Amino acid sequence: MATFGLIEYSDASPEVRAVYDDIMATRKTDWVNNFWKALAHDPAALKRAWETAKQVMGAGALDPLTKEMIYVAVSMSNQCDYCVASHIAGARSKGMTDEQLKELIAVVGFANANNRIVAGYQVEIDERFKP
Amino acid sequence: MATFGLIEYSDASPEVRAVYDDIMATRKTDWVNNFWKALAHDPAALKRAWETAKQVMGAGALDPLTKEMIYVAVSMSNQCDYCVASHIAGARSKGMTDEQLKELIAVVGFANANNRIVAGYQVEIDERFKP
Amino acid sequence: MATFGLIEYSDASPEVRAVYDDIMATRKTDWVNNFWKALAHDPAALKRAWETAKQVMGAGALDPLTKEMIYVAVSMSNQCDYCVASHIAGARSKGMTDEQLKELIAVVGFANANNRIVAGYQVEIDERFKP
Amino acid sequence: MATFGLIEYSDASPEVRAVYDDIMATRKTDWVNNFWKALAHDPAALKRAWETAKQVMGAGALDPLTKEMIYVAVSMSNQCDYCVASHIAGARSKGMTDEQLKELIAVVGFANANNRIVAGYQVEIDERFKP
Amino acid sequence: MATFGLIEYSDASPEVRAVYDDIMATRKTDWVNNFWKALAHDPAALKRAWETAKQVMGAGALDPLTKEMIYVAVSMSNQCDYCVASHIAGARSKGMTDEQLKELIAVVGFANANNRIVAGYQVEIDERFKP
Amino acid sequence: MATFGLIEYSDASPEVRAVYDDIMATRKTDWVNNFWKALAHDPAALKRAWETAKQVMGAGALDPLTKEMIYVAVSMSNQCDYCVASHIAGARSKGMTDEQLKELIAVVGFANANNRIVAGYQVEIDERFKP
Repeated sequence: MATFGLIEYSDASPEVRAVYDDIMATRKTDWVNNFWKALAHDPAALKRAWETAKQVMGAGALDPLTKEMIYVAVSMSNQCDYCVASHIAGARSKGMTDEQLKELIAVVGFANANNRIVAGYQVEIDERFKP
Repeated sequence: MATFGLIEYSDASPEVRAVYDDIMATRKTDWVNNFWKALAHDPAALKRAWETAKQVMGAGALDPLTKEMIYVAVSMSNQCDYCVASHIAGARSKGMTDEQLKELIAVVGFANANNRIVAGYQVEIDERFKP
Repeated sequence: MATFGLIEYSDASPEVRAVYDDIMATRKTDWVNNFWKALAHDPAALKRAWETAKQVMGAGALDPLTKEMIYVAVSMSNQCDYCVASHIAGARSKGMTDEQLKELIAVVGFANANNRIVAGYQVEIDERFKP
Repeated sequence: MATFGLIEYSDASPEVRAVYDDIMATRKTDWVNNFWKALAHDPAALKRAWETAKQVMGAGALDPLTKEMIYVAVSMSNQCDYCVASHIAGARSKGMTDEQLKELIAVVGFANANNRIVAGYQVEIDERFKP
Repeated sequence: MATFGLIEYSDASPEVRAVYDDIMATRKTDWVNNFWKALAHDPAALKRAWETAKQVMGAGALDPLTKEMIYVAVSMSNQCDYCVASHIAGARSKGMTDEQLKELIAVVGFANANNRIVAGYQVEIDERFKP
Repeated sequence: MATFGLIEYSDASPEVRAVYDDIMATRKTDWVNNFWKALAHDPAALKRAWETAKQVMGAGALDPLTKEMIYVAVSMSNQCDYCVASHIAGARSKGMTDEQLKELIAVVGFANANNRIVAGYQVEIDERFKP
């Protein structure tokens, strides 16, 4: 299910195929997941998201696995089931172990609890923490 | 400002002081930030949060810096200003560089965008991603 | 599935039927969607929500289509699958084109990214923007 | 206040200045707001956000004012104070009247209420609404 | 600060004054808080919100204090500082003790943690829990 | 479905079984719901969550039913379907009536609306509400 359906490779325009090809080449895989096939209905958005993915999720001061784990943490906080499932897969493909994922989940739970405890106690920012 | 005010060390019960002492010893510092001073009005919650912090945020399959960065990512997604400020400070004290923080922010922005794009396109989970 | 089940027209009290009748007359349709059938278990809430819908979602300084699109944008940000699906349908019935929906989704993604980037950079409100 | 401070035009690199210049030219104004000055610490992110802004927020199937209002609606739902303040200003500069803003706020409140009422009643998606 | 400013009693229309009078009479107090003074710029919304408040927040199957505490819990989860501050005050005026508030905050923290842990472990609803 | 699958009693380690036994004894029931069976893959997290549950959700200044209802309210606001379903069941087992649940849902809806209306009107905290 998807708002406009999914665009398979065989039905894709050359513009969309070029992105699919780059996704598969970059990920060294022979398939494209539903997110991109849904987004392909807006080729400019597809291209923008994929270019951003390459810039933002690739190696830099943070390694790609850490970035995938941050992505999972955000998706858990936002209750995006698709994003949790797909980026757990993405993180595993980059080497995330089960132990790492369990620790990640524990941190996300802890942060979410404390974010609201701070709201309830109306805690003011310490002078030393102000930017 | 805080719902019940902040409990300073000099006014704290022995039970609360024990937690403050452990926080300072663990962090190798001589002060305690407002979160703990606000939470100290509920000593059982203070103790529980601190024990959880030691279990969850310490070294394990993930290193403490990665955990702090995940905490920052969650706090950004939840718009908790206090938590963002205090855990950026925490991550920096564990070695986070400016470049790492900028990349973290970029990943959090990207994930938040895509979490909602998935909702708009009503993307179904790929069979391969189902647990 | 619904917490208390769905109340069909044939099983509805006169009070609930009056709301269903008004929904169908206002929308020029012969059916009522699940949201109202679930909410009908609380007839006062049903009436209140429907009266508010007529006041808030109807033509005013903003046209009904713009309001439906705002509703979709909020529902995407809140990850409410039911609301996204039903209000995309509502917006389409008011004339939303596929191109408009794709642009809407892109704006919602962009806003969600920037909302968190602002949190990460801890950006202070410009003097000119203060109310 | 901002995590890395704000980069003023006079201190900006040519790369950042080019973006600032384009922002001011596009908006027909002589200043740049804090969001961009904070983000300028990550020039690639600055450029990416600004290019996306031009693609996503400009005229298309939806007019720029509608897009600004959608942005405000999302920012309200996410409790991003900066974003609410800055994009109310942006929408006003594009012609949003006070009456329109009040109606927008009413729709956002209504949608947020119903998003959670749906969760409480666990309403299943109507067959007709499934994509 | 407020988007359109605050409407004081002396400047209010008869329609708005009638609501203010009812708020003060119902609450047995001689002042009106900023929420209503801001919302008064949209008199229909003001009246609707106040009528809903009387229907929803008053005594019923749940007592008014429990309802105020639920309101605080939601506001903490949504990071609405104004709402947390004003409804803690409201709950206290209805008899909430400090001990009750501390327990409330602890429950909200725990629920927020578990909501995300559920997302991370992708837990499926037990058959017995399905409505 | 669950990220690591569900650990049934017959496959559980003594450590996990001890928690399951305590859950069943405390709840006077002969089964354990999926949340715990999923979390059992991280025995330390399982034990921590269960110990916290006993501390936080049991009788105190607030009764267990009120706490369950607060939990449901938070889960609705966070769109956690599993948590809504399981804690509605939990609240019912503690005596929540249908009328109470309907009023709870109405309060959660109202609070969620107002939380965002406050954001849109940018309402400043009244002096009297500041802690």
